[in-house]
Amino acid sequence: MTDQAPTTSPEGGTVTFMFDPDEDRLHEECGVFGIFGHKDASALTALGLHALQHRGQEAAGIVAFDGQRFHSERRLGLVGDHFSSQAVIERLQGHASIGHVRYATCGDTHLRNVQPLYADLATGGFSVCHNGHITNALTLRQDLIREGAICQSTSDTEVILHLVAQSRKPRFIERFIDALRMIEGAYSLVALTNKKLIGARDPLGIRPLVLGELDDGTPILASETCALDIIGARFVREVENGEVVVITEDGIESLRPFPKVEPRPCIFEYVYFSRPDSVVNGRSVYEVRKKMGFELGREAPCDADVVIPVPDSGVPAALGYAYETGIPFELGIIRNHYVGRTFIEPTQQIRALGVKLKHNANRAVIEGKRIVLVDDSIVRGTTSVKIVQMMYEAGAREVHMRISSPPIRYPDFYGIDTPEQQSLLAATHSLEEMREYIGVETLAFLTPDGIYRAMGYDKRDPVRPQFTDHCFTGDYPTPLTDREGSRGMARQLSLLAEAG
Amino acid sequence: MTDQAPTTSPEGGTVTFMFDPDEDRLHEECGVFGIFGHKDASALTALGLHALQHRGQEAAGIVAFDGQRFHSERRLGLVGDHFSSQAVIERLQGHASIGHVRYATCGDTHLRNVQPLYADLATGGFSVCHNGHITNALTLRQDLIREGAICQSTSDTEVILHLVAQSRKPRFIERFIDALRMIEGAYSLVALTNKKLIGARDPLGIRPLVLGELDDGTPILASETCALDIIGARFVREVENGEVVVITEDGIESLRPFPKVEPRPCIFEYVYFSRPDSVVNGRSVYEVRKKMGFELGREAPCDADVVIPVPDSGVPAALGYAYETGIPFELGIIRNHYVGRTFIEPTQQIRALGVKLKHNANRAVIEGKRIVLVDDSIVRGTTSVKIVQMMYEAGAREVHMRISSPPIRYPDFYGIDTPEQQSLLAATHSLEEMREYIGVETLAFLTPDGIYRAMGYDKRDPVRPQFTDHCFTGDYPTPLTDREGSRGMARQLSLLAEAG
Amino acid sequence: MTDQAPTTSPEGGTVTFMFDPDEDRLHEECGVFGIFGHKDASALTALGLHALQHRGQEAAGIVAFDGQRFHSERRLGLVGDHFSSQAVIERLQGHASIGHVRYATCGDTHLRNVQPLYADLATGGFSVCHNGHITNALTLRQDLIREGAICQSTSDTEVILHLVAQSRKPRFIERFIDALRMIEGAYSLVALTNKKLIGARDPLGIRPLVLGELDDGTPILASETCALDIIGARFVREVENGEVVVITEDGIESLRPFPKVEPRPCIFEYVYFSRPDSVVNGRSVYEVRKKMGFELGREAPCDADVVIPVPDSGVPAALGYAYETGIPFELGIIRNHYVGRTFIEPTQQIRALGVKLKHNANRAVIEGKRIVLVDDSIVRGTTSVKIVQMMYEAGAREVHMRISSPPIRYPDFYGIDTPEQQSLLAATHSLEEMREYIGVETLAFLTPDGIYRAMGYDKRDPVRPQFTDHCFTGDYPTPLTDREGSRGMARQLSLLAEAG
Amino acid sequence: MTDQAPTTSPEGGTVTFMFDPDEDRLHEECGVFGIFGHKDASALTALGLHALQHRGQEAAGIVAFDGQRFHSERRLGLVGDHFSSQAVIERLQGHASIGHVRYATCGDTHLRNVQPLYADLATGGFSVCHNGHITNALTLRQDLIREGAICQSTSDTEVILHLVAQSRKPRFIERFIDALRMIEGAYSLVALTNKKLIGARDPLGIRPLVLGELDDGTPILASETCALDIIGARFVREVENGEVVVITEDGIESLRPFPKVEPRPCIFEYVYFSRPDSVVNGRSVYEVRKKMGFELGREAPCDADVVIPVPDSGVPAALGYAYETGIPFELGIIRNHYVGRTFIEPTQQIRALGVKLKHNANRAVIEGKRIVLVDDSIVRGTTSVKIVQMMYEAGAREVHMRISSPPIRYPDFYGIDTPEQQSLLAATHSLEEMREYIGVETLAFLTPDGIYRAMGYDKRDPVRPQFTDHCFTGDYPTPLTDREGSRGMARQLSLLAEAG
Repeated sequence: MTDQAPTTSPEGGTVTFMFDPDEDRLHEECGVFGIFGHKDASALTALGLHALQHRGQEAAGIVAFDGQRFHSERRLGLVGDHFSSQAVIERLQGHASIGHVRYATCGDTHLRNVQPLYADLATGGFSVCHNGHITNALTLRQDLIREGAICQSTSDTEVILHLVAQSRKPRFIERFIDALRMIEGAYSLVALTNKKLIGARDPLGIRPLVLGELDDGTPILASETCALDIIGARFVREVENGEVVVITEDGIESLRPFPKVEPRPCIFEYVYFSRPDSVVNGRSVYEVRKKMGFELGREAPCDADVVIPVPDSGVPAALGYAYETGIPFELGIIRNHYVGRTFIEPTQQIRALGVKLKHNANRAVIEGKRIVLVDDSIVRGTTSVKIVQMMYEAGAREVHMRISSPPIRYPDFYGIDTPEQQSLLAATHSLEEMREYIGVETLAFLTPDGIYRAMGYDKRDPVRPQFTDHCFTGDYPTPLTDREGSRGMARQLSLLAEAG
Repeated sequence: MTDQAPTTSPEGGTVTFMFDPDEDRLHEECGVFGIFGHKDASALTALGLHALQHRGQEAAGIVAFDGQRFHSERRLGLVGDHFSSQAVIERLQGHASIGHVRYATCGDTHLRNVQPLYADLATGGFSVCHNGHITNALTLRQDLIREGAICQSTSDTEVILHLVAQSRKPRFIERFIDALRMIEGAYSLVALTNKKLIGARDPLGIRPLVLGELDDGTPILASETCALDIIGARFVREVENGEVVVITEDGIESLRPFPKVEPRPCIFEYVYFSRPDSVVNGRSVYEVRKKMGFELGREAPCDADVVIPVPDSGVPAALGYAYETGIPFELGIIRNHYVGRTFIEPTQQIRALGVKLKHNANRAVIEGKRIVLVDDSIVRGTTSVKIVQMMYEAGAREVHMRISSPPIRYPDFYGIDTPEQQSLLAATHSLEEMREYIGVETLAFLTPDGIYRAMGYDKRDPVRPQFTDHCFTGDYPTPLTDREGSRGMARQLSLLAEAG
Repeated sequence: MTDQAPTTSPEGGTVTFMFDPDEDRLHEECGVFGIFGHKDASALTALGLHALQHRGQEAAGIVAFDGQRFHSERRLGLVGDHFSSQAVIERLQGHASIGHVRYATCGDTHLRNVQPLYADLATGGFSVCHNGHITNALTLRQDLIREGAICQSTSDTEVILHLVAQSRKPRFIERFIDALRMIEGAYSLVALTNKKLIGARDPLGIRPLVLGELDDGTPILASETCALDIIGARFVREVENGEVVVITEDGIESLRPFPKVEPRPCIFEYVYFSRPDSVVNGRSVYEVRKKMGFELGREAPCDADVVIPVPDSGVPAALGYAYETGIPFELGIIRNHYVGRTFIEPTQQIRALGVKLKHNANRAVIEGKRIVLVDDSIVRGTTSVKIVQMMYEAGAREVHMRISSPPIRYPDFYGIDTPEQQSLLAATHSLEEMREYIGVETLAFLTPDGIYRAMGYDKRDPVRPQFTDHCFTGDYPTPLTDREGSRGMARQLSLLAEAG
Repeated sequence: MTDQAPTTSPEGGTVTFMFDPDEDRLHEECGVFGIFGHKDASALTALGLHALQHRGQEAAGIVAFDGQRFHSERRLGLVGDHFSSQAVIERLQGHASIGHVRYATCGDTHLRNVQPLYADLATGGFSVCHNGHITNALTLRQDLIREGAICQSTSDTEVILHLVAQSRKPRFIERFIDALRMIEGAYSLVALTNKKLIGARDPLGIRPLVLGELDDGTPILASETCALDIIGARFVREVENGEVVVITEDGIESLRPFPKVEPRPCIFEYVYFSRPDSVVNGRSVYEVRKKMGFELGREAPCDADVVIPVPDSGVPAALGYAYETGIPFELGIIRNHYVGRTFIEPTQQIRALGVKLKHNANRAVIEGKRIVLVDDSIVRGTTSVKIVQMMYEAGAREVHMRISSPPIRYPDFYGIDTPEQQSLLAATHSLEEMREYIGVETLAFLTPDGIYRAMGYDKRDPVRPQFTDHCFTGDYPTPLTDREGSRGMARQLSLLAEAG
């Protein structure tokens, strides 16, 4: 899910300025989890969300249903900080539960935007949480308000609630599918009613969603398999693209409300977002990353003394690159594990430090060496510049850079928080200009075909690409209704600025 | 305004048990304030709410409009604790502002129920706050949900938002009046749009609302005149029963959407709720209370040495009683000013103490005396029992009790938090039984006609009573739709339990 | 007790500016309580401190001894906010307990200064709390540091700990008396060891301290009798001037380490500090205040329509004045009960309001009237000016002022927080200048002999005054060593600025 | 520094039970930092402490001196959470500053124990912070109390304050050295007076301390070189064993108050504590760890398919082991970066999970493989058991374990938080018993001589060992006075239990 008004900013609250040492990274916006028919439903949901914490650190929420009432707890901050106590879990009574973690955007942090959302419908209580982005949400929201609906949040997810509420179909599941047919974009949804746990994945299966089960057969939905591992659950299968999975006391039913098409999952789950120990769409993320490093080593070898990963996401690709090229792998950059995501009103010294707050050169393996840095991607390039400089200051004789994915030239509109296109280094610089900007001897990216080879294909199918890869190619797989029709859409948005 | 689900309780949150030394009192549920066209709109609203703090201590909120955007701050706790800093007021930019204080119910304290409420409508932003209670809110809410509306709070006030949103009238003010025509009960509303400040009072004018102005002509709406005094504003007039006052840059317009009827304001504003320095419906509250004491002295004199008020609300009536009877007035009960409204998880000792936390006998004026205690009302009677006992323990020779209003026999449904009828002492006990229960030598209440005399009438007009006085008489002035049609209405309510 | 460095200010902390609506009042600095041999010792101590809350609102602390260990809880804020929960009281295990409330000075609020203080001595644990001020504490502190002692707080009370610790006497009680013999000034101490509860009052008995007992004989020490009332304890007697009361399992022992002199208690306990329901040195505070009003009525009658007290401390004197003069008593000023003591970073509007935050004119009894305001004292006079102005704005025809104590011309050094002498209105203005400054028709103070008459004497004994009354007379009853020897004493003080 | 009373437990506070996923690790107890003569002294201290955060996460403090006054801020929690804002740094004015981070012990977390400590001495203000442990602190403390000193904390560091305060030497530095001569054990101290920044290292140099400088010559003291790197400072030299470095405006002076002996630094800084990018006593920690892996590979090769490090501290040794043995290195265990150190009142589910909260098996590189796990040490062994089990559950065919240091058989008394000896797995189990307990095919530790080879020596010198290595050998390098003389020493300790 995505807040629709990230740019209408100075939204009150007490935060006046924030410094984010991770700002030059892509950010995923959510992880979802659901479980049905277990006495410890909420405790297991909390653990699952903890395993999905890398997908969003801003806020977390859980809604549980105890057979009579829904219970909700939503908090800004980490799962472990707010959902690890017995007292909180006891308040979330019930045998069915869904939960959500959300990415930390700056400034626009209102509790009312934290998921799962909930509504009393004529058919009963309904709670939903969402990973992805609805690309016609603004358009739909405008229509809904014109019809008299009242939107309480600025989240695209709320549109789903209203569409379900306003459907005239008699049965809940029909209403839910009515709603799905009206929304465009990428979504993996987990929803809870007083009878059902529902998982739904958009027609292309852009964002991930898996089905698992505990030893006793309790069904589970989760964004990634690592959330199954933590509670000892077994991976059953992917929820398929365009599939709606309905879990009740009578078992699991699979609905297919959309025409059958080939799946086209987001390739960035492999490059950066998913945890390396997860298996996404049947592939080990760790193995795929290592293979990206192999392919990169084949495509762009380097005459260097040592391979140095940019931690942590660059490590598997660096290992692959090292194994392919035979250059020794060393931890030449040490990460400070105690860096929070953001600093509020930081001192000038902190702002000047930038990447050194989080990373330090390990001089012992750098000094006097020709090094090749391996990273997974370049967004704005500002962090790369600083890391390269840090390497030279630590005595590197030569610094080369290898990137284990193709250049990012286009922004995402499906739930990844990318900067505007003009801020993407590769959108405005040639390879040589990038090399010069970053300050390295040589720079190379993995080719589009290279990344498809790492995924197990011969090459990218230009007619019917196997993955959602618009960040590299500009080939957006769905309509971008809000964006195309943005006749001042932003102005239609909520005018209410509220502090949490 | 009233939460519609005060009994669907154990709503999570961290509060497990609370002890309220004021529990044996009636509780008002709100105060409202609005100002239009002043550069310090929010600062003045905060001061006005501070003066209205006696009408509600649970939470406070302010919404301001700066010509472009609405800004909202809503907090649990006192106005002075949350709205006195420059930083908060600066966030509430704008020349128009409305605010609300809310009574402290136990347990059901969710920020989402704190007012003013806000919605983006097709006609623009709309914010509203409410003092009173809508007696057909549940019925309307059920209809709204059936039509596909999504209710985010359990507050009756939210129904107004939806009714305005769903009206098909083209102009905002027509939609607002459409909504008023559908609601029943008691309400004094203050609302803000991007063009207008609106004040509205129900057809009978049950809850108070006044219009004032600053020296520069800035118009102000407030529950009581004491909120005008604090900012140096002049009282202009009452908003009349059934009147809608629309304040824009072009001035003040008065609309009368309802058939003209005689006003029938709530008599309890004089007995207990309003501040003694306020002028309500043209009468000084302090003077009315003193006159209740006069009438009580006339109706029920007493052979005693000293008149002792139960502080603080009993003081003016006790003065009146003393002046009428010639018995000296003394402060025989000393109040501890540092008693907060509630104690969380109190020790057994605190619970056993009860009233002694707040009041202590002033032995010097009690010992060996025949005393007559004057209080404004008896609800459950539990506090009276303890105060009488405290008087005897301090050496009183005789204790008599005089109450400056008639016995409370019926619950309120218009925004006063009364216990169930069976908990009202006067509903289940004869006068003699009450006297015995409370443990006094003699007990007398002011008669209904006596209280009307204190108000300046010869007597209560039984055909067309001058005041809303159902607590004494059972004569409810409006339909009680939800209550009469309560075929399990409570079950239709929000099933979501959420911690703040 | 007093912090010794109130002027060495900008002490860090997060408070940048505070506005105190009570700033033009005298402030007492402490209340003490102790109990020995009761299973609910700490719960009863918390209740006793709650009753003494008027003596200090900044902070509160309790130390209990469970036979093995001492337990301590010290908090900034009110007793009811921090010591009313079962959890806190359970941590304060033990059958003996002492507690302290402390006045809110601005800025210098460090938890390390909150009492009771505690030290491990060679003789075992020792905890002490203090009401008063040691007038040679700086001098002693300087000597102690020169000897190698380490002072952790800036409180004069810590000096007592060090003096006891450094005494060479073998028995604890001898060490304690050694320490008392070295300190000068005013003190009522309550102390706890692993064997004893101790109460001590300075040789003149300047600050109050009483002994009480529960029905079961449990002994109690407290600053005022109202702390006995709240827990149902009986007043036994005053701790006498110069007396040390030692309470053990074997009973109560009274020691007299000082030469016998006549007591000379602080007269301001009657004028302003003590609660009206307390009996101090054998006199009801309420009755004394009323008598001050009588005497004032005799000395300075007034041709007026109505007597109006400045709430709350002026009420008993106003009643006395009204009864003596026959002018009707009315509540012409209404107090807002929801004013906290201080506002942090208040808006300009709040600062401009001043007294109106807390008081409002009750126009109904003022308009067109000749009023006589009765207050207990004038310190700087700034509040009086505003109240008088408020009366005229409410329509008073004439305003007269009567003060029920003599003019305050000299600062206190015994635990009352008075401003510097040049800020005391009566120290720098003649009566006529004061009248003009305050803006009243007539102004009168009670005479020194008048206040002694209210206390039951014919007049002040100029040779051996019955009370400590230097604020009126400049007759300080003890040496002021620190002040006289202040060869830059302040510079010797702690240089450490720490935020709480 | 160490609290002397970790076992006298239930110390109040609100923490009732905590679960620490890192409990089966050794814990270092502190990091220190100091800077003299820089306008941004406190900001740079905060950054230095951030780089030393791995040495202690419980609390942090900074004291600065502005030429007139000392300023102190001490907080529970991480440096980045409390010392990154402009407001806090501005309160810590001055050109000289010292700081401290402290390890998180459970339960005994009182702000009064947080360093730097401060005292006003006869010679002026003195602040000190400490890494290490004074092994005769209890004995000294008992003597000090007998002499009349008052100890406010339970920290061994406070003893230093008192010894300096009580020295009769005229000059401060002589007093400081007097104090050092009385204390035994391990200490790296950084201290600040109104003239000097002082660094001191115990006679054997057990805990680390380095001297660095900024480009402008500003001198810096820090526990590790990584704290120099973060602020762009240059490493100058180690502070030597037994050296006292005195930094004033006139430059740096080196004092040698102790007889010259060979240094004997703690070997555990290399095994576990120091950051891999630090250079400790002239050796790169990363390189030493890799060499431990080499030696381990030589001493204990393994017939396996893949080398898997236990993250994060096992990674360098695993790389060394892999390079030596030729077995491929893979990240077979993925760490969750969002695990806080502790969970308060965790659910039963969280407690049952244990290591899975933090680590997950990367099934893709484990399934069907013979794996060799490389870890740096085994303490209780409880974590190792769970990790091995996790490997088997992920499909490992065989699991072998190699530990890159010798078995830990003896507790530490120099500032490392080790469990009691009976809880150390290697103290009570033979190698075969350990192998069986942990559940692996084969288990091997690096030999004592092996670790000395990794450090660059032929072998351990049994007569004059080059390192403090008692955890492996039982050879404690200093007297353990408190321990040996523990005639119930614990009972002499503070009996005061206080909540922060």
